[in-house]
Amino acid sequence: MIEAGDEVVSEAEVVDEEIPCVRVRRGTLPDKIDRLEPKERQGLTVVITGNGKGKTTSALGMAVRACGHGQRVCIIQFMKGDLYAGEWDGVRQLTGVELHTTGKGFCGIQGNPYPFSEHRDNAHDALDLAREKMASGKFDLVILDEINNALKLKLVDLEPVLELLRSKPALLHLVLTGRDAHPEVVELADTVSEVNEIKHAYRKGIEPQPGIDY
Amino acid sequence: MIEAGDEVVSEAEVVDEEIPCVRVRRGTLPDKIDRLEPKERQGLTVVITGNGKGKTTSALGMAVRACGHGQRVCIIQFMKGDLYAGEWDGVRQLTGVELHTTGKGFCGIQGNPYPFSEHRDNAHDALDLAREKMASGKFDLVILDEINNALKLKLVDLEPVLELLRSKPALLHLVLTGRDAHPEVVELADTVSEVNEIKHAYRKGIEPQPGIDY
Repeated sequence: MIEAGDEVVSEAEVVDEEIPCVRVRRGTLPDKIDRLEPKERQGLTVVITGNGKGKTTSALGMAVRACGHGQRVCIIQFMKGDLYAGEWDGVRQLTGVELHTTGKGFCGIQGNPYPFSEHRDNAHDALDLAREKMASGKFDLVILDEINNALKLKLVDLEPVLELLRSKPALLHLVLTGRDAHPEVVELADTVSEVNEIKHAYRKGIEPQPGIDY
Repeated sequence: MIEAGDEVVSEAEVVDEEIPCVRVRRGTLPDKIDRLEPKERQGLTVVITGNGKGKTTSALGMAVRACGHGQRVCIIQFMKGDLYAGEWDGVRQLTGVELHTTGKGFCGIQGNPYPFSEHRDNAHDALDLAREKMASGKFDLVILDEINNALKLKLVDLEPVLELLRSKPALLHLVLTGRDAHPEVVELADTVSEVNEIKHAYRKGIEPQPGIDY
């Protein structure tokens, strides 16, 4: 086993038991690897909004990170369910992570055949599921993917969403994604990022690509 | 097995073989689940930059997604290596994903004991590793985490990074993360998102929390 601080001058792959993969050809590894441990554990409410690519993927990345800490994760995808996405199979490989698709696609998008009432029923069921999972005590991280969008499209009402945020167990992390996050949701959150599109491949006619876009 | 279009009225968890987890209490599942397949496969260059939370996590989410499609992924973390992060263990659970930490922490950050020259040596090694992995033909997605930052801090020079982008194999997806992406890197990319901080928990004195922040 390679110790931190060891000199490693090798062309070969250096795999440490403590670190998944470390490769340094010249110089040394860091003298030590620190581990943060907050004095106080606190469950955060995180909102990832904006019109750019990287909101759902960011939430999925937090699932990977949480999983590495041995935490249990529940992902509830609002509206999604009619179009296959790689994460449906990707998260199967992560221990302690479950994913629920609860919808019939993006309401109001051209070609979507379902009436508003069906989208709304599904979104209400998703909200019930969220409430139940959050209160179950079984999870460290609950991700409500596209809930901001569902709120904007009036598939769910503001008050029950705010009530969900207010009733969050203290140690539970809650992540809400989707465009157009409501200002009152932003107000209640601890960390909020807005992902803005600078460029997107589809604008030059490139179709969505597996692994990146879905 | 539940078929798309089936009516599902149950309080029980409904798990479909095709979908990781579907739960609908009222109404129906979507009539069908579509699968996108682009007419032309194309490897994209994606840049995730900005000062907000959700850049590395977004790249990790793309790794999950790619993994779900059976793609092979190589993640090279520039500068990181001195501070444990949950993703080091999280990605171990993903088939076909490897992760390399190549650094000694963020250069110039208070308390970091290593001289600039060591950070620069490590970043150069990371760049060599990136070149090798990209050319190996073994990966569908290569993630260069914090490379924008390394470039901004002059740990690597602009020209070799641009050369890396220009020499990208046509079908390989390449993701570059980190603050302050260089305009010429942005110019060469297909999709670019800027993640802006609206709020961050640390501003109200909350320490970084495992599963969310690291």
